[in-house]
Parts: sequence; C-alpha cells; structure tokens
Amino acid sequence: MEIKVLQNILGANEAIAAQNRQLLDEHKIAAINFMSSPGAGKTSLLLQTIKNLKSKVKIGVIEGDVASKLDSDKIKGEGVAVIQISTGSSCSLEAHMISLALKDLPLTDIDLLFIENVGNLICPAEFALGEHKKVVISSVPEGDDKPTKYPLIFTETDVVVINKLDLLPYVDFNLNNFRRALKGVNPKVKIFEVSCKTGEGLRNWYSWLLSEVKAITTR
Amino acid sequence: MEIKVLQNILGANEAIAAQNRQLLDEHKIAAINFMSSPGAGKTSLLLQTIKNLKSKVKIGVIEGDVASKLDSDKIKGEGVAVIQISTGSSCSLEAHMISLALKDLPLTDIDLLFIENVGNLICPAEFALGEHKKVVISSVPEGDDKPTKYPLIFTETDVVVINKLDLLPYVDFNLNNFRRALKGVNPKVKIFEVSCKTGEGLRNWYSWLLSEVKAITTR
Repeated sequence: MEIKVLQNILGANEAIAAQNRQLLDEHKIAAINFMSSPGAGKTSLLLQTIKNLKSKVKIGVIEGDVASKLDSDKIKGEGVAVIQISTGSSCSLEAHMISLALKDLPLTDIDLLFIENVGNLICPAEFALGEHKKVVISSVPEGDDKPTKYPLIFTETDVVVINKLDLLPYVDFNLNNFRRALKGVNPKVKIFEVSCKTGEGLRNWYSWLLSEVKAITTR
Repeated sequence: MEIKVLQNILGANEAIAAQNRQLLDEHKIAAINFMSSPGAGKTSLLLQTIKNLKSKVKIGVIEGDVASKLDSDKIKGEGVAVIQISTGSSCSLEAHMISLALKDLPLTDIDLLFIENVGNLICPAEFALGEHKKVVISSVPEGDDKPTKYPLIFTETDVVVINKLDLLPYVDFNLNNFRRALKGVNPKVKIFEVSCKTGEGLRNWYSWLLSEVKAITTR
C-alpha cells in the first residue's frame, strides 16, 4: 500500500514534469538539474559558472532547500533571476514546485536555467522536474565508492562533475576507482573533473553548458 | 492527503520504535543511531571505535544502505556481529527494519549497538528507531553552514561529531561559525571534534560511549 501511494505520487510528478519541459522548450530555455550530497559544492559551482557565463547567456536559477535562504542570497548577489523554494520536510524538489517557480521567472529573458536540488543523493533521483539534463556533483572528500553506494542517481544522471580536485593530496580518493564504479552503473555518462577553488577543469564544463544552450536555441 | 499518509507511516514507526527500545532495555544494550551526509565518515568512525573498544565492551552493528554491502564487509573484518539492511529506494532506516535486524543479532552478547543509518541529512531525522542516543557526524569539507541548512536533524540529535579536522587548513570551514549555528538550533547538544585519520579527539568520544554503556548496564 505504501508502494502504491508512492507510485501515484511519482506518476503525477511525471505528468507535471512533462508540462514543465514543454514550457521550457517553448521558451528555448536549457534547464539543468543540479544534484549532490550536502556540501559537495553545488552552490560554489553555480556561482563560478554564473560569474563566467552571465555575459554570454541569460541565466536564471531555482534554488531548492529544506530550510534557509543562504544559497539564494549568494546567487542574488550575482544579479541573475533567482527563485527560492523551501521544501520543508521534503527531501527533493518535485515537478509541481518547479511549475510554480516557472510562473515567477522572466522566461522570455532566460537561456539557461539552473535548478539546484536539495542536498541528497537518494530522493532527487526519483523526481523528474522537466529538466533537459541531470548533473550530479560529487566531491573528492566524499570518497570514491559513492557510485556503488548510491547507484540510482549515478545511473540516471547525464553528467557527473567531480569537484574539490584540490583536496586529492589530502584524502583517500582514487580517481580511477571512481570512474570505473561510475562507468559500471552508467557507461554513457559525461565526466568533468574540476576544482571550484582553483578553477581547474572549469573551462570544459562551461563549453559543455554553452553547447547545451546552443542545441536548444537553434533547434 | 499526502501529509496524512506520511503521518500514518510516522505514527506506526513510533510504535515499533518503542518496542525496539523496550527490547534493547531488557537486554541492557546501549543503542546509538549514526546519521550523516554521504561520505562524512560514519563507517570510518565506526571502524576506529570498534578497534579501540572491542576489548572493553561487546559490540554489535546494524548497517543501513540503499545498496551495496561495502560497509558491512569492512565491519565484518573486525569480528563483531553485523547485520546489513538494504533499504532499496527508502532514504532512511525505519523502525520495522531494526525490529527485523534485532531478531538476527545475538542480543545477550551485545553491550553497545551501533546503527549506521543511510547517508542522508533529511529523512533519518523523521524516523525514530528505538535508539538511546542520536549522533550526527558532520565533516569539515561539507561547510560550516550545515546546521542552518538542515535544521531538523541537528535539532533532534544528542551529539554532533565534527570529523575530518585534519582538512581544516585546506577548506573554508570556521569551527566557531559551525558551533554557533549548531547551538542556535540545539543549545544542549554535545560536540566532539575529531579526525578519524589522525586520531585527534577520539579519546573523549570513546569515554562518552563507555559512559553511555555504563549508564544502561548499571541501571
């Protein structure tokens, strides 16, 4: 019975996600769903990305948190459109929350929409939001076993950004082990290896984002 | 309607948690619920603790993961009783899972039971398991804003272990900011500051655990 309730919720979610996707497509907005553990660096990567790309593309942000406006306050400082969603006890953003946020965003003035999900490696894997691409940020101090321990989110994602490369000398994290575990659950995944602190590897990430925007705006 | 379903689930969970607690009390077993983000160091702290205390007290472990037996295999190497629970898509251990695991553990031969929850800062805060104490492990690379961003789990816990102190020189983490944010949501919380890598601070943690065992076995 619990399972049936969950299936109903997920079924309703898929339908609203499809509506969101249609609205985004009509406005030629590329939408990226950022997912990670707490503290892996979603907001840091977002801030670096906005600083670097805001002169090239029009950016919007939906910030999801169980509580607090700490992250959206940081984003607002960059002068881009941002909507904060407080999920309360919900462990993931859900499509109906995005649907409401899209009503409040200036859609005609956005090319690239970042949706920063709640910090969690489990629940966000279950809820489609209408995004075009899913991105998981995984940080070096979390350990190289995470794709094996949390397979669903790593299986479903299009991209994994390995962040905090600058900490490699100080922790037990083997990049080859991580890549092998990740490719084992998701052979087609795209991987970027970066440090938001030193800037290492970010240029490839920016190029990929711009190619995603181009793919949507020119079709 | 969603909320009512959730309330029913949580109500049923509380009842089973109370039964677990009674069983643990009858056997004079001190039970500790370990909660954290993925990769904060629950398993590392557990391994260090078992190595140090297994000659002094009889230890049992319940390992919760959404997938994989990586952690329970590590624990088994230490020669203590361990039960693996695979939660599937569930983002927390729940009382009925613990109830089943307790049936399979040699309860008369355990003084101290560690329950390692699923790596998640949101869901485990909602599900009582029957434990005597809740412990959150928070690691330095996650950032000092976590008590503000995930208030429920930090409000409900009895103890916070700040782990990976050895990484303080390499990341932006202010211990005073963390302590202030934590005391803001939970004035009575007990704090240990440790590094499982260097061993720093672990002696106080071990003493506290032994005092918890003593409190239960002598009452």
